[in-house]
Amino acid sequence: MPGSEPLLDFWFDPASSYSYLSAMRIESLAREAGVTLRWRAFLLGPIFRAQGWENSPFNQQPAKLRYMWRDLERICAARGVPFQRPSRLPRDSVLAARIACHCREAHWLPDFVRAVYRANFAEDRDIGQAAVLADCLEAAGQVSDVIMPEATSAAARPGLRAATTEAMELGIFGAPSFLVGGELFWGDDRLEQALDWALANQA
Amino acid sequence: MPGSEPLLDFWFDPASSYSYLSAMRIESLAREAGVTLRWRAFLLGPIFRAQGWENSPFNQQPAKLRYMWRDLERICAARGVPFQRPSRLPRDSVLAARIACHCREAHWLPDFVRAVYRANFAEDRDIGQAAVLADCLEAAGQVSDVIMPEATSAAARPGLRAATTEAMELGIFGAPSFLVGGELFWGDDRLEQALDWALANQA
Repeated sequence: MPGSEPLLDFWFDPASSYSYLSAMRIESLAREAGVTLRWRAFLLGPIFRAQGWENSPFNQQPAKLRYMWRDLERICAARGVPFQRPSRLPRDSVLAARIACHCREAHWLPDFVRAVYRANFAEDRDIGQAAVLADCLEAAGQVSDVIMPEATSAAARPGLRAATTEAMELGIFGAPSFLVGGELFWGDDRLEQALDWALANQA
Repeated sequence: MPGSEPLLDFWFDPASSYSYLSAMRIESLAREAGVTLRWRAFLLGPIFRAQGWENSPFNQQPAKLRYMWRDLERICAARGVPFQRPSRLPRDSVLAARIACHCREAHWLPDFVRAVYRANFAEDRDIGQAAVLADCLEAAGQVSDVIMPEATSAAARPGLRAATTEAMELGIFGAPSFLVGGELFWGDDRLEQALDWALANQA
């Protein structure tokens, strides 16, 4: 019976490297587990800036940044997920997140989000560019000239801001984050644990 | 044939919360896998300070710190490992690391290190105190009046400094870290992957 399934909120920023790992596998894992998934786009930038950081914390630690790319490379290789080290991190994800936030209920949303992550982390394309996102919309079977103006309209814009505020209020400080009831799980390596928690603690 | 086994270096700081998780399971996991383990104590403090930080990065992010305790709590509960949120993080780990570094070849070293982690993260004791470390040495079957003066002598002190410099040169930026050949793995959640790597890439 749909609706009685346990629920998991997947909070992601299209610029977040480790969210790529989760985006590529979360839908099939949640389906297998019988957990309903909500795709929740938000922006890490305002959360980092609220902590006094200009930018991704990775860019403050060269050793950690080097490690992160190697870690991603190894994990993608082990999972058979394509990976190409992007020439820039983080990329401007505002437009991508706006579309993902506005269209969060659309059946094609997961396809779009995966196309965005692939563009960023497997094809080294600049997801800050509308033309790249238009390709991602087309890849999800959508007409970008229809979706894009609507998702970026003045009426739609406060949605992403509200989502980011909500994320901050939920205690989210990084991505990917998974929220199950009041329990927060951070990092692709906690995805299985979050799904288990959803199953073990369902109402 | 001993000596032909693949090798894994376990880099830990006694003050590091997530290293507690690894310290409690790494010896049995490595034994099962047939991987030779080297316990490498070092200090995170100088590495953090080289990045311009006063202290643990967790203390710069209240949301992340809150999450970290909850995450540890959940993982310890799932693994049946005792956990009590320490009243202070990080604790002064210089003395504990000095002993662990000086006695790294001793057969009782893993028992001592586990006792230190238990004191810090299961009993909320101050591992900066010599009396607490004396208890940890006794728990490992050693006479602290013999070990302590030797491990903290002027002759022994440069050892820990050299280990910390070596860690930094290896690209280590946090703990626990696992080094297998030139491959760095960071975080308790990468321990299985590091062991697999050691087995798959042995000479």
